[in-house]
Amino acid sequence: SMRIHQAVNFSPDLAKRLAVLVKMEKNVMASMVQVTRGRRDAARQLSYWGEDCDDDISDVTDKLGVLFYEVAELENYLIDRHDQYRVTLKSIRNIEASVQPSREKKQKLLDHIYMLKHKDPESPKLVTMEQELVREEAACLVAEAQLSNTTREKFKQAMTYNLDALHEHAEKLGLITAYGRHLLNLIDDAPVTPGEARPAYDGYETSRQIIMDAEHALSTWIPAHPSVNF
Amino acid sequence: SMRIHQAVNFSPDLAKRLAVLVKMEKNVMASMVQVTRGRRDAARQLSYWGEDCDDDISDVTDKLGVLFYEVAELENYLIDRHDQYRVTLKSIRNIEASVQPSREKKQKLLDHIYMLKHKDPESPKLVTMEQELVREEAACLVAEAQLSNTTREKFKQAMTYNLDALHEHAEKLGLITAYGRHLLNLIDDAPVTPGEARPAYDGYETSRQIIMDAEHALSTWIPAHPSVNF
Repeated sequence: SMRIHQAVNFSPDLAKRLAVLVKMEKNVMASMVQVTRGRRDAARQLSYWGEDCDDDISDVTDKLGVLFYEVAELENYLIDRHDQYRVTLKSIRNIEASVQPSREKKQKLLDHIYMLKHKDPESPKLVTMEQELVREEAACLVAEAQLSNTTREKFKQAMTYNLDALHEHAEKLGLITAYGRHLLNLIDDAPVTPGEARPAYDGYETSRQIIMDAEHALSTWIPAHPSVNF
Repeated sequence: SMRIHQAVNFSPDLAKRLAVLVKMEKNVMASMVQVTRGRRDAARQLSYWGEDCDDDISDVTDKLGVLFYEVAELENYLIDRHDQYRVTLKSIRNIEASVQPSREKKQKLLDHIYMLKHKDPESPKLVTMEQELVREEAACLVAEAQLSNTTREKFKQAMTYNLDALHEHAEKLGLITAYGRHLLNLIDDAPVTPGEARPAYDGYETSRQIIMDAEHALSTWIPAHPSVNF
């Protein structure tokens, strides 16, 4: 896609691969937004369809619509946290991009000194260039240590955002499906014979309670394990 | 979208709302396919970026790439099962569409008889029309019972496919994130000072075991609760 094309062409080599990954994650998010929208529409349409049906189907589809709308909200929240992961990856890409010039500068100096030693070993410039090289090497050592430390720190931080977000999403989605099943059980699908009336639906109180329980469970959810310290 | 437009214009009234829902669910699936593709690309790119890094990052990103690729596969599987839900909804829409004509026929007859009773109460046609009405009413009673029974049976079946699929997806996604965390712990992010060498990475055996454990956990997963009988 256009985003990836930009990342490939405008990033310093060292940062290219991560720059592409950052753009790819942006594409994943854009697609997730589409899924979220679609799910919301479908959740509304489910209860809109149910309105025309008998009381049991109407009530249960209405409440299931609430739960599926909540799934869409969960996915929306997941998108925000995916962006947190993506933005943290960017901080690694940034330091990669900033380290590259000092590597190149040092390399150029080395090449230059190597060339001069062969062409004009007595040149007075050699001394100053070698002093400059010592300074560049020190700068590079610091840059490499920064790169090494930041890459690990930020990668663990980024991936923890990503994994924690997916973990929370997974657990809350699991909760929602369990409450969805309870709702479904309110529908009596024992067949009726032609002309036979169905027993009146009396699940309104129960279905309301199921939704309240679901919302309570979601709002009081805490990770089953403390997130990894980074 | 174009799909929804078709559903609205070409479905019998009774089946219109569900027809629209069926199309909306198709849109959700199309967007989910985009997410899956994006996730696969990002999983590959994550390990491709890691290749250029030190051993620990390289190994862990490679293994995390495997896990995130697995997340994409899970989503792919979820799409197939979402289609199972969608297709089962279609069977309700089909019976709605087939019941509508008998309703309309009965209504027309009632209107016709009503009109005739006022205009020409002695008309011999009344007797035959009322006999036809009795037949239509019987047919309608059967149709309504079929609609009532099939709607409940198929709706519970459809929603069970949907909820079971989301439940399995949620639990397997949760498993994957837990193994992802174990992998992340293999990265030692204690900072090094410039020029200081990092301890050699010795996590290869562990990371391989984590992936094998993850794959085993996913392949031997069974629902924590028997799915709702329908």
